[in-house]
Amino acid sequence: MMIIMKTGATQEEIDNIVARVKSNKLNAHLITGEERTVIGVVGDGRPVEQGQFVRMPGVDQVTPISRPYKLASREFHPKNTIIQLNGLEIGSDQIFVIGGPCAVESRSQLLDAAVKIKEAGGHALRGGAFKPRTSPYSFQGMGEEGLKILAEARELTGLPIITEATSPDLVPMISEYTDVIQIGARNMQNYALLQAVGKSNRPALLKRGMSATINDFLMAAEYILSKGNPNVMLCERGIRTFETATRNTTDINAIPVLKSLTHLPVVLDPSHSTGHWEYVTSLARAGIAAGADGLIIEVHPNPIEALSDGAQSLKPKRFKELIEQVDAISKAIGRDLASIPTKAINSEIMQ
Amino acid sequence: MMIIMKTGATQEEIDNIVARVKSNKLNAHLITGEERTVIGVVGDGRPVEQGQFVRMPGVDQVTPISRPYKLASREFHPKNTIIQLNGLEIGSDQIFVIGGPCAVESRSQLLDAAVKIKEAGGHALRGGAFKPRTSPYSFQGMGEEGLKILAEARELTGLPIITEATSPDLVPMISEYTDVIQIGARNMQNYALLQAVGKSNRPALLKRGMSATINDFLMAAEYILSKGNPNVMLCERGIRTFETATRNTTDINAIPVLKSLTHLPVVLDPSHSTGHWEYVTSLARAGIAAGADGLIIEVHPNPIEALSDGAQSLKPKRFKELIEQVDAISKAIGRDLASIPTKAINSEIMQ
Amino acid sequence: MMIIMKTGATQEEIDNIVARVKSNKLNAHLITGEERTVIGVVGDGRPVEQGQFVRMPGVDQVTPISRPYKLASREFHPKNTIIQLNGLEIGSDQIFVIGGPCAVESRSQLLDAAVKIKEAGGHALRGGAFKPRTSPYSFQGMGEEGLKILAEARELTGLPIITEATSPDLVPMISEYTDVIQIGARNMQNYALLQAVGKSNRPALLKRGMSATINDFLMAAEYILSKGNPNVMLCERGIRTFETATRNTTDINAIPVLKSLTHLPVVLDPSHSTGHWEYVTSLARAGIAAGADGLIIEVHPNPIEALSDGAQSLKPKRFKELIEQVDAISKAIGRDLASIPTKAINSEIMQ
Amino acid sequence: MMIIMKTGATQEEIDNIVARVKSNKLNAHLITGEERTVIGVVGDGRPVEQGQFVRMPGVDQVTPISRPYKLASREFHPKNTIIQLNGLEIGSDQIFVIGGPCAVESRSQLLDAAVKIKEAGGHALRGGAFKPRTSPYSFQGMGEEGLKILAEARELTGLPIITEATSPDLVPMISEYTDVIQIGARNMQNYALLQAVGKSNRPALLKRGMSATINDFLMAAEYILSKGNPNVMLCERGIRTFETATRNTTDINAIPVLKSLTHLPVVLDPSHSTGHWEYVTSLARAGIAAGADGLIIEVHPNPIEALSDGAQSLKPKRFKELIEQVDAISKAIGRDLASIPTKAINSEIMQ
Repeated sequence: MMIIMKTGATQEEIDNIVARVKSNKLNAHLITGEERTVIGVVGDGRPVEQGQFVRMPGVDQVTPISRPYKLASREFHPKNTIIQLNGLEIGSDQIFVIGGPCAVESRSQLLDAAVKIKEAGGHALRGGAFKPRTSPYSFQGMGEEGLKILAEARELTGLPIITEATSPDLVPMISEYTDVIQIGARNMQNYALLQAVGKSNRPALLKRGMSATINDFLMAAEYILSKGNPNVMLCERGIRTFETATRNTTDINAIPVLKSLTHLPVVLDPSHSTGHWEYVTSLARAGIAAGADGLIIEVHPNPIEALSDGAQSLKPKRFKELIEQVDAISKAIGRDLASIPTKAINSEIMQ
Repeated sequence: MMIIMKTGATQEEIDNIVARVKSNKLNAHLITGEERTVIGVVGDGRPVEQGQFVRMPGVDQVTPISRPYKLASREFHPKNTIIQLNGLEIGSDQIFVIGGPCAVESRSQLLDAAVKIKEAGGHALRGGAFKPRTSPYSFQGMGEEGLKILAEARELTGLPIITEATSPDLVPMISEYTDVIQIGARNMQNYALLQAVGKSNRPALLKRGMSATINDFLMAAEYILSKGNPNVMLCERGIRTFETATRNTTDINAIPVLKSLTHLPVVLDPSHSTGHWEYVTSLARAGIAAGADGLIIEVHPNPIEALSDGAQSLKPKRFKELIEQVDAISKAIGRDLASIPTKAINSEIMQ
Repeated sequence: MMIIMKTGATQEEIDNIVARVKSNKLNAHLITGEERTVIGVVGDGRPVEQGQFVRMPGVDQVTPISRPYKLASREFHPKNTIIQLNGLEIGSDQIFVIGGPCAVESRSQLLDAAVKIKEAGGHALRGGAFKPRTSPYSFQGMGEEGLKILAEARELTGLPIITEATSPDLVPMISEYTDVIQIGARNMQNYALLQAVGKSNRPALLKRGMSATINDFLMAAEYILSKGNPNVMLCERGIRTFETATRNTTDINAIPVLKSLTHLPVVLDPSHSTGHWEYVTSLARAGIAAGADGLIIEVHPNPIEALSDGAQSLKPKRFKELIEQVDAISKAIGRDLASIPTKAINSEIMQ
Repeated sequence: MMIIMKTGATQEEIDNIVARVKSNKLNAHLITGEERTVIGVVGDGRPVEQGQFVRMPGVDQVTPISRPYKLASREFHPKNTIIQLNGLEIGSDQIFVIGGPCAVESRSQLLDAAVKIKEAGGHALRGGAFKPRTSPYSFQGMGEEGLKILAEARELTGLPIITEATSPDLVPMISEYTDVIQIGARNMQNYALLQAVGKSNRPALLKRGMSATINDFLMAAEYILSKGNPNVMLCERGIRTFETATRNTTDINAIPVLKSLTHLPVVLDPSHSTGHWEYVTSLARAGIAAGADGLIIEVHPNPIEALSDGAQSLKPKRFKELIEQVDAISKAIGRDLASIPTKAINSEIMQ
């Protein structure tokens, strides 16, 4: 850390800082500038509470030097993490596309969606059984019944499934059904949940909180990694800004920044990051062009009847077009769409 | 809701909307303007999914008319909610000040703090036993041991205590120790937690999420209220903006806006909303001048040794000055500080 | 406009609103909902001051229905505006790329840059002669001398040039030298400047202000259009948000949103929107994939010696790679790079 | 400045940085930490272009140490600047309140307003003659005719006047009429205008841009100061954030932060910072409680008829109440309202 003294800080004030640095068993390096003195603090890597220096007389500000995340950092782990998922390689050169409805609404709705996702060329199926809704009066999801339907859809199509956990006590049960556990934007700093997912044996798809900095986002991933789960995908889904023309502001910069700072796979959710189906395909193309490893897209067999997020859901036909366009973009940047699982539709289940 | 059609929407498009409105058992009122047609939708108060209209051909946008919260709304409950807490009236004309450290760090630290809070004129004691920390490597709190120390501090001073719950499964245990349950900013949309607190018999202090709109904030309160707990205080603690000179941006506007929209008591936390002890007293004065009912302030007997939030914690002496200044501001606006609980310090506990 | 009454507004309050609407020679349509009354106000298209209704007793809020821009709106002008510039078609299916240094620093620097931009396949040359700098102590540009060098660079390469006007009184002089007048982000609501550019006969490249909504942005374009200049390009260059990992946050959503709302060409500036050369090419690809018509890129023959924006400037070699990648993306979405002006380098000027 | 190297930067990369630092005639101090090397750069106070280092191999980031403003800084000028204005001391212990309409709309409107401002106890009169409006179709102000009316109102009441300049070429003319020149939020980084006001002999009231950081704000003040005008008041008027419940978000933190960083007087504009008359008085109280030196308030004799900003304008009667409440707050913090100019109303002018 760097302790920047005020212009005009006295020698005694500087001496006091140095003494306190030493009492923490750290080393102090003084740089005497034309205007200010800066004290560089060097230690053995243990975290040091900055607050103790901020309030000492003569101090202007304290700036950290080290990044607070280690396990998530590309500096310490230069090679890409590749997550294996039913033959799909997440984080490799292959581009993957997850599709599915916001929520599991019924068996027929989900199985219908699953078949269409598969036929369109999607690589995995999403669908929420436990829904975090802004209003207590909105549809809150089908619960475990929804998980069973998701498992049935996997049986039917061979597509791996992804669904959200909203509370730490649900993680063991959800892990039994799902292939990937999603942590929603509102829960990105629900540390009890992050720790529970860190102890599970399922890959996690961690959505960025709507006011989380990239640093906060990587610290949330660090929570999961630090509990022993190395398989974390980071999902940009838009941040909250002053602009109201779209539901959120897609932080497209975050894609190359994350690819530079971390070895974890990066996914874009253009459905939530725009909030309107008309913009989803443009953003899906942009996300892959910017360097994302995959996409997660809301698709509903009949969006107009959706119980949630109907405005941002694609119809299956448009989802197919999206995949074709994403394929073209992937090739233009020297990557390729992952091949889809070969399992045929198990038509017995549909009956 | 109002459905605003595009300029140039066809009669057929308008007819389709009207038909769909009617199929929802709602009434449609057409307003034909110089540029656009607007369709007002009127029903019986049941929530209607907007998404179904947003994506219909010819629609430009859909605007809700009703506010989505009911129990929290002053329109439906004009009189102030007053929460009774050991003789303290929260939400009445009395101004109250909660003080205490960010975290319970040890028995001696907390009992020392409690006595000094009491001597300075504080009305309640805060202290975290379960700490949501950005880094998995930071001090995470003393857990139940910390709750026991808090209860002891109440025994010692007579001050009611307030502490944070970070997970729904902790709520029953925390309820046994604490007088008020705090829900932190990062958990404002942790709906499982909100529901658990809604089922407890303890008043809640709900902190605003750092990117929550006032509407989101009131919807989070609605979750608690809808589960049967009528005693919710709303705490403004700063929002995240582009400004980095302070830790957060105090949304001081939110104070009169909340007092106008809701009957629930409103509290300001100037410690988190500024992040620096030098600004806390100015903001405490401003919060009361703007119309807040109370304050929650970080106070540490020795901030330089604090394990967290040292930079924004006041020393007890400055906390006493803050209370004196807040007293003067209260009187200037025709209100008064609440009187402090009369119980003498139980000096046996200190030994 | 829609006037939304409070729940519990009295009949007298409603009558007063209706009377005031009529006194403005407008029509009032009442919609009586389950909770509230809404009054739709319909007129002949003249702007009406909303403030008069906001403060009347019983009013909850007032919502505009019409969009405030007309000349910029695709609703009134469905066909794309195509700007002709020395054989380049801006806003057509062709993709164009403007390159050049932040500032004209010397004759040799700019002519060197110009030749390299041309050789790399750039379509136009940028360079500032009047620089709006945050600090009064920074390099403020070469002034008219810089404009002369720009004109010489055009002579040398055949590339059209673009340079910024920072004050209305400079517009006539700058118009004599430049092909396109740039209005910088800080001046997006400098209405005297917008009007001066609106009266000039040069196309304008209007940069979005760093806290301008898309609506504000289109209103700024409307100022230029309303003074008679139909040739306006809109340039997204990043907005200010809480995220500090990049200089600004590229609002990539704005690209498809603008293409939907307006007929004007849309350009992305990934140099300013990221602030770091390492991210510029990724974002250039993303911008074209999202639907932008062109790019403006900072390129410096020797960025390490640049007097401004060195961190975000590309070397000519990387600019060439960027153009190759943008070419591939353009083809993937069924568009094409514009062909470059055929004029050979006029080597006499270089001596 | 501090140059922070990447973990794993090579010795050669470090040597190259050091060589470049020396070639700038600066000194380099190396701090070798457990993870990274930091290079402290010390010079003689001349500004150094950071961009040259940001892009060198092995560099992670570059952090400035010095503040970029000097003349505005309290570090270099510890004593408060006090601006003398017709016997009013701005920046002293006295609190002052400016009132008046958004725009001069007619002679009778302004003279009526002026008399009522005076009678209510206001210290100065505001009113715009050149209005920067978001829409080119809105009322743009009365121009020089409005300035003449303002001068007449000063003659009538003895109140000093304040009005906005929107373009550098207007500054000489406006200076002849007004006592204080206002620079609006949209023009905070209109450097040509700042320089023109810096050369005038009138005090300036500089409004913070809606997305300006406190650092940007002080740099804008530095522009004016650097041209020789020492009399600058800083006006907080709300920043743009995600919250839409109010027109802007009052950055109340900015008040104590500015008082700590600069010697210039600080003013709050609660009319623009809230956008709604109902919240203005609460915020006026809060601003003074937080430490502001004065207020600027929109007051209109008949807000419902105002041509702009009617929703946020106070009626004269409420303005009088505001002043009484601000008086009580001022006394509670040991300050006092300035006494009003003693000149009697010159009733001949009214006829």
